Amino acid sequence: MKSLQEQLEYIINHKTKPLGALGRLEEIALQVGLIQQTVHPSIEHPHIVVFAGDHGIAATGLVNSYPQSVTAQMVFNFINGGATINVFCKQYNLQLKVVDAGVNCDFNGIECPAFINAKIANGTKNYTETNAMSEQEAILAIEKGKQIVIQIARTGCNCIGFGEMGIGNTSSASLIMSAITKLSVEACTGRGAGANDVQLQTKIKKLQQVYTFHELQHHAHNPIQLLSKVGGFEIAMLTGAYIQAAHENMVIVVDGFISTAALLAAKIFNSHILENCVFAHTSGEKGHEQMLAYLNARPLLNLGMRLGEGTGSALAIPLIQSAVNFLNEMASFESAGVSSV
Amino acid sequence: MKSLQEQLEYIINHKTKPLGALGRLEEIALQVGLIQQTVHPSIEHPHIVVFAGDHGIAATGLVNSYPQSVTAQMVFNFINGGATINVFCKQYNLQLKVVDAGVNCDFNGIECPAFINAKIANGTKNYTETNAMSEQEAILAIEKGKQIVIQIARTGCNCIGFGEMGIGNTSSASLIMSAITKLSVEACTGRGAGANDVQLQTKIKKLQQVYTFHELQHHAHNPIQLLSKVGGFEIAMLTGAYIQAAHENMVIVVDGFISTAALLAAKIFNSHILENCVFAHTSGEKGHEQMLAYLNARPLLNLGMRLGEGTGSALAIPLIQSAVNFLNEMASFESAGVSSV
Repeated sequence: MKSLQEQLEYIINHKTKPLGALGRLEEIALQVGLIQQTVHPSIEHPHIVVFAGDHGIAATGLVNSYPQSVTAQMVFNFINGGATINVFCKQYNLQLKVVDAGVNCDFNGIECPAFINAKIANGTKNYTETNAMSEQEAILAIEKGKQIVIQIARTGCNCIGFGEMGIGNTSSASLIMSAITKLSVEACTGRGAGANDVQLQTKIKKLQQVYTFHELQHHAHNPIQLLSKVGGFEIAMLTGAYIQAAHENMVIVVDGFISTAALLAAKIFNSHILENCVFAHTSGEKGHEQMLAYLNARPLLNLGMRLGEGTGSALAIPLIQSAVNFLNEMASFESAGVSSV
Repeated sequence: MKSLQEQLEYIINHKTKPLGALGRLEEIALQVGLIQQTVHPSIEHPHIVVFAGDHGIAATGLVNSYPQSVTAQMVFNFINGGATINVFCKQYNLQLKVVDAGVNCDFNGIECPAFINAKIANGTKNYTETNAMSEQEAILAIEKGKQIVIQIARTGCNCIGFGEMGIGNTSSASLIMSAITKLSVEACTGRGAGANDVQLQTKIKKLQQVYTFHELQHHAHNPIQLLSKVGGFEIAMLTGAYIQAAHENMVIVVDGFISTAALLAAKIFNSHILENCVFAHTSGEKGHEQMLAYLNARPLLNLGMRLGEGTGSALAIPLIQSAVNFLNEMASFESAGVSSV
């Protein structure tokens, strides 16, 4: 009796194409088949969920080039359909959800089916001086992230990509990355939305001070502590969302720098989570490549994008669909009457 | 008065995203705008055209692992919808045309709107002994390629990807590449559909003999002579198709190793042709990376695919559509009320 993996490999290898000629798509077809435990996988109701949150440190202007208010403005842009992720979700027929995880803005009264209010607080505290959030808030954010994925799973969704929006959140991601991977803060810190050389040096120096202030090296194995010290509400909620998506046995499409940092935290809770993950793209943000290397991840795309919002995931989902489609729809050498080698 | 390029750059830079954050997609949006000479480009009726042809050398079995008959079998597979390119065209709503450029099979009586009979002959002659085709046949194939694109342009198509099928045609492509780029035959020769180490060495040795026999170094600047000596009917027809697609001012989506070799020939006829070309992917076939470097081309995808049929182009067209969509549909900082830097 062949194992499921052997059955999938047999089917892939007998399609009317040279052995291995579909490259990475063959690996994805195998992975999705194994996730769904079937030789006939399918992608159903794919979603992109964008978690938005504000960061206390952003009010200082020390680590960010855009003002903090842009987070809320971009949430309105998502709701109004004007952002990149809206354009891509429309093109590829992906359901978009936008979550207020902790934006410094009151969204009461917003009537939009894509909008989810899961606010923990109006932004984190400034972690140069104190903890970004309490441990209770970190736990609550993780829990809310899980609940959101549970609701989405009930719609029949089995493939999900997570994005984020939050002015200053590359800083939080860099600190989490540095603590967990043991790479230096400098190696983990990039330009974010557009720091120039001077701003980048200021950002690195400030984050090094934060790392020392919170003694992050002692908290690498405790994501609750790590998130409470230097996290963001959107990153904590992403962490919970990843955990639940794996629990729901979804195909998880991992986006860029901040989203992958949240995955580093989620992986501490579930060491098998990568089995469900397809890495969408290599971000142009410095540090993402090393983060991917740490996870032995090989993303599908490398388009120099560094936008967040789940935009990389949105572009990768059609490729995952292509992998599933060739597995399900292509003729075999036998069925097509084509001679094999 | 701003130039069109300045206008496009202004629009791209004022979309609600950090400067440059969409990476390669921003370059593609600019390129398509410049090709179409508008700030509102669009992709209309995108097509994939697969040219199929047989190669005399394939009957010897010296350079190919699959038997020659597979070319015709795969044409039937295309017609019956069972090949990878069928699956991808269906997924991405691309029109597929399959052209008999010179397959060693009689397709008379085939009733299929996707099929085009443009047969020059039942395969080329064995170029280890004589010219693959006469110069008249090369000219005729180029002309038929042009005519096919003229017909497709009349349907309103402004974006076209070319694919090919032909057992043995990586050998022809390697020889053309070596002649035009001046790289050694060995550097230009890969495993094709699946040569093992011994077969690869035999293939290289045989192609080196062919290069010498035809004195290809003297014909690098004359694509008619080059195609007549070592070309294939599908490669010659591709060459004409490229030339006409540029003449029709289409966005040309360049596929893998063999398709790019035909572009090398087309570029001798039209030195500006690259302005219309978007390179879809880096093929896993050895030599393609160097061919791309010779053209200063940076493909969108690198999925380790090496299938031909236009499959790389099919996967890249949605990304080109995404580039056009963000340009047309995204909000600007001003229209969305988002603060810029």
